[in-house]
Amino acid sequence: MDAEWADVTPEAARRLLTAAVQAFAERGYHATTTRDIASRAGMSPAALYIHYRTKEELLYRISGVGHRLALGILRTARDRAAGPGERLADAVRRFVRWHAEHHTTARVVQYELGALGEEHHAEIVALRRETDAAVRAIIEDGVAEGVFDVPDVRGTALAVVSLCIDVARWFDAGGRRTPEEVGELYASLVLRMVGCSADVTTGTG
Amino acid sequence: MDAEWADVTPEAARRLLTAAVQAFAERGYHATTTRDIASRAGMSPAALYIHYRTKEELLYRISGVGHRLALGILRTARDRAAGPGERLADAVRRFVRWHAEHHTTARVVQYELGALGEEHHAEIVALRRETDAAVRAIIEDGVAEGVFDVPDVRGTALAVVSLCIDVARWFDAGGRRTPEEVGELYASLVLRMVGCSADVTTGTG
Repeated sequence: MDAEWADVTPEAARRLLTAAVQAFAERGYHATTTRDIASRAGMSPAALYIHYRTKEELLYRISGVGHRLALGILRTARDRAAGPGERLADAVRRFVRWHAEHHTTARVVQYELGALGEEHHAEIVALRRETDAAVRAIIEDGVAEGVFDVPDVRGTALAVVSLCIDVARWFDAGGRRTPEEVGELYASLVLRMVGCSADVTTGTG
Repeated sequence: MDAEWADVTPEAARRLLTAAVQAFAERGYHATTTRDIASRAGMSPAALYIHYRTKEELLYRISGVGHRLALGILRTARDRAAGPGERLADAVRRFVRWHAEHHTTARVVQYELGALGEEHHAEIVALRRETDAAVRAIIEDGVAEGVFDVPDVRGTALAVVSLCIDVARWFDAGGRRTPEEVGELYASLVLRMVGCSADVTTGTG
């Protein structure tokens, strides 16, 4: 969990953010109070307000961190020097692994979107559009190069992103598959979805 | 919404159930009180307790109705007299349409699973296993008949179910695609995921 929030400083602000993720995940945003969050972080409500003015600001910060990390993963895959098949497989592997490993954060980020204030909501929705666009760009490259066969690029990109995100809902850390195994399976399924005819070597992990 | 709850009687019990779905969807299970639900249904808290002993019982009933309808859709497709490709496409079309049309119910059912009591949770988890098994059975038939090429049947069945369920998260009734259009797109993507080589005619809708 720590690497996820490494950029959040000072340490007290980071501790409050991870406490908020746990509280929102267990009870939902609306059933959680700032007092609950402060208490989980071993702090007073007054200490919380030094770092975050409102409960909504905590959710906004969590959502921003989560969405920027996810977008970074996809953009890195998009911009690699490799064929579209390998880039798409790499994007899916990493995106799935992120959602499996950080499933608690991912659930909060996905399910509590409606609780964000209007401006914050618009900002996060813009990040989501960029996420879809990064996947769409790889698919468009594959179609342009003649190695993918995709009648509906926009719809297929949405389906690929959706398939990966939903891993956060069902993934069970004690279950029969590791994040790496799910990532590998999903990469192969997604290459089939885009009708990839190229030989795609196994990624570098 | 009404057809979904047609089997719930008397009318007051049905009204409370639909009020509970709306309340849970807007504020989350833990932030909703039985008083909120009764008030939305235009009833007194005392009137609610005639029909449901606890808030958890309302969630359990909602979850049971939702899971049984979803399972019924998949079993009907599984048992049709048609080839595996046509049956799988039919299952996906109908399952997606259900999740798009009933996205509010589906979200409550999926995201609040952890709030069920132990026995109720076990009962719903058993229904979910049957749902996965219905899709797996169609894929196994396709592999046995040599029209599907699926190295990991269990994982692929889970991915297909997951892809369809996640429609409830992102589907927007005012968006650019109808439930039927998403169903059609997803049926074609899923046939690619199973490497279906058979000619699959468009379903009867």
